[in-house]
Amino acid sequence: MTKEPHLTRAPGGVALPAGPAVLRRANLSLVLRELRDHTSLSRADIAEATGLHRATVSNLMAELLERRLVREVGVEHVGAIGRPRRAVALHGAHVGALGMEINVDYIAVHGTDLSGRVLVERRVVYDTMGSGPDSAVRRLGLVAKEAVEAMRRVGAVPAGIAVAVPGLVDVTRGVVTLAPNLYWHDLPLADQLSSILGPLNVPVRVDNDANLAALAEYTSGIAAGTPDLVYLTGEVGVGGGIISGGKLLRGADGFSGEVGHLRVDPNGDQCGCGRIGCWETKVGLAALVRAAMPEQAYGLPGMPVPDPGERVADIARGLASGDRRMMMAVAQVGEWLGLGGSILANLFNPRAIVIGGYFASLAQWLLPHAQDQLQRLVVAAPAAQCRFVASTLGFGAASRGAASMVVNHIIDDPAAIMDPLPRPAAY
Amino acid sequence: MTKEPHLTRAPGGVALPAGPAVLRRANLSLVLRELRDHTSLSRADIAEATGLHRATVSNLMAELLERRLVREVGVEHVGAIGRPRRAVALHGAHVGALGMEINVDYIAVHGTDLSGRVLVERRVVYDTMGSGPDSAVRRLGLVAKEAVEAMRRVGAVPAGIAVAVPGLVDVTRGVVTLAPNLYWHDLPLADQLSSILGPLNVPVRVDNDANLAALAEYTSGIAAGTPDLVYLTGEVGVGGGIISGGKLLRGADGFSGEVGHLRVDPNGDQCGCGRIGCWETKVGLAALVRAAMPEQAYGLPGMPVPDPGERVADIARGLASGDRRMMMAVAQVGEWLGLGGSILANLFNPRAIVIGGYFASLAQWLLPHAQDQLQRLVVAAPAAQCRFVASTLGFGAASRGAASMVVNHIIDDPAAIMDPLPRPAAY
Repeated sequence: MTKEPHLTRAPGGVALPAGPAVLRRANLSLVLRELRDHTSLSRADIAEATGLHRATVSNLMAELLERRLVREVGVEHVGAIGRPRRAVALHGAHVGALGMEINVDYIAVHGTDLSGRVLVERRVVYDTMGSGPDSAVRRLGLVAKEAVEAMRRVGAVPAGIAVAVPGLVDVTRGVVTLAPNLYWHDLPLADQLSSILGPLNVPVRVDNDANLAALAEYTSGIAAGTPDLVYLTGEVGVGGGIISGGKLLRGADGFSGEVGHLRVDPNGDQCGCGRIGCWETKVGLAALVRAAMPEQAYGLPGMPVPDPGERVADIARGLASGDRRMMMAVAQVGEWLGLGGSILANLFNPRAIVIGGYFASLAQWLLPHAQDQLQRLVVAAPAAQCRFVASTLGFGAASRGAASMVVNHIIDDPAAIMDPLPRPAAY
Repeated sequence: MTKEPHLTRAPGGVALPAGPAVLRRANLSLVLRELRDHTSLSRADIAEATGLHRATVSNLMAELLERRLVREVGVEHVGAIGRPRRAVALHGAHVGALGMEINVDYIAVHGTDLSGRVLVERRVVYDTMGSGPDSAVRRLGLVAKEAVEAMRRVGAVPAGIAVAVPGLVDVTRGVVTLAPNLYWHDLPLADQLSSILGPLNVPVRVDNDANLAALAEYTSGIAAGTPDLVYLTGEVGVGGGIISGGKLLRGADGFSGEVGHLRVDPNGDQCGCGRIGCWETKVGLAALVRAAMPEQAYGLPGMPVPDPGERVADIARGLASGDRRMMMAVAQVGEWLGLGGSILANLFNPRAIVIGGYFASLAQWLLPHAQDQLQRLVVAAPAAQCRFVASTLGFGAASRGAASMVVNHIIDDPAAIMDPLPRPAAY
């Protein structure tokens, strides 16, 4: 997502002059980025926003049109007396971006073209935890192949795949360092998936699910376009993704936004991770089930909950019928949600905290308590305007964000789609 | 610090074409930014890094040399058989950047030229708290005038002033929203100072002291160049500044990094702010004094400490002589420092947490406990490599960062120094 410097360096570190091809690609990327961030623009708008000369923009546009990466979208009338201008928009219907997610009990797929048009969307029930990493990666590969085929059938050749994983991911190497709920550690997922896909030869990236869901929220969710937002996944575990100044905040190793194990209560319960008083022990699904349905309590907070979806539905029914114990449980979890939210608001000063997973399902009951607590605890009055909002993207958030990330990578470095593309098999 | 889009819009929102002057300034800024981030570069390096044509760079460079904003720094030999290349570096000895800080008991000044060369540095003892805002602003104006004169005498005309304040600052309007330790609230400091400086006509900005100190640490401190770092001020209050991906993280309203009142202990003591269990009540100077020298205990944690410097010196002497109670006090504060640090490490994944103020003075005793606790509590192993390090910038950090911020603003928008400069009076 960061702008790559256009450097060409020989192995010895000696600077080589940037060739005209490198320069041109950098400029093509600049133009594509503007078009990604706006529905449509005229050539004059683009010249203005990029600082490139009009003639250069027209010239670049000719190439982008020829390569079908942009399309003319008709005539825009500017002002009452303005002369009509032809606007262009991102196109790339033949360039695919495949987003995937593998989670505890499902694999999700979200494939788009370069303009974000959805080409394939699918959710496959799969017991990742029970299957072990080898079978899971094979299954993921199979689902990926089918999605690639489906996209090819409609004329789009995937230029990249990104996979969302609920855990710590070494993004540079594509290795899942630790995904406790999948029982995965040090799994070289990008390499393994690439090798399964073999001749399809699509670059594979891996990233944290909350990071990618945050990106989806920023791109197309309820708080789309909010440059400072935090996304929280509410499951058995609680993950976070941070958008700051319109960009995914990664930190030094890509491990930012690890919200689940913040110590919020030094005198609290032991967490599944072995630490004491983690935020997950207060707001994870196990904590809620424990307080709302103590007869069904089991294990430690932070440990797996059988049939999480059913438990959430039970609790929603109980709340709808005014069950007092459940009301109290949800108030307590809501207050802890607000306490953790206040830490995020004090540190990141976001405009919105978008809550996903079970938090979204129970939002109407959780949010009043959470918002109230957040406002009490945040220091700066304007920062206290930060609102909790329920995600509307559902289970598809992470795979949708994964597809957005692929689009962003293509646009940041369009080299991959600049070379002559192989014709799709079905053409 | 963010790259401004080069847009020119008429009031009605109609886009106007960017004139050649706008374009040229954008390109001059691009070149200056490269030179700011490197000691010296050849024209070829700059062409490569910016994506501008060599001819354009040579042309821009001619203007920058004529305006004395860059200077030739001799010949660079590249590689064993490389031909010699003339390198250039940032110059601007006639362009001043004035950084200031006003705090509880002093006003500090740090003035540099465009290349960061220090022209004036001064610290004035001043009882800001006791004087009231009107007198304090007048005094600040007087110190600013003297600094401007001193800089003019050595040939540099300040192109901007930035003032660091220990509190919440509305950066856009230059208003100090709340600075509890100065007893200031809703003080339009930028406007008041501008009006005092009157005919000097230097633009004034105001920012949070920890933000500016973080910038100083990133520019020239012990962890200089670390793109992900957190800075903590350890005083009676505890403030934070976040550098993420090489940029100051501001959040939606500029109120990010408010670390002092994170609720770290729901069963903790009441804070001076009225909330319960704030981090300041655990690691602020009042908390340490209370635990280390209970016979001197007074007020609530988070409230003023008389003669803070003397108290810290007393404690350092006690620790050096092996005082057991003080050892236990510093261990306890160190552990809480580590706990808060683990929250920062989990959320921002920095490489370093640079500690200033009294934390730095007592670093040798605090840091082992803090580092140990941080490592226990951080989730991701690589994030746990985050080190606490003591700042070496001392009291000058915030004013030094303020000067850096002025330099950054000039470089981001060199318009202010592009027009013919008034000759300094002493010339």
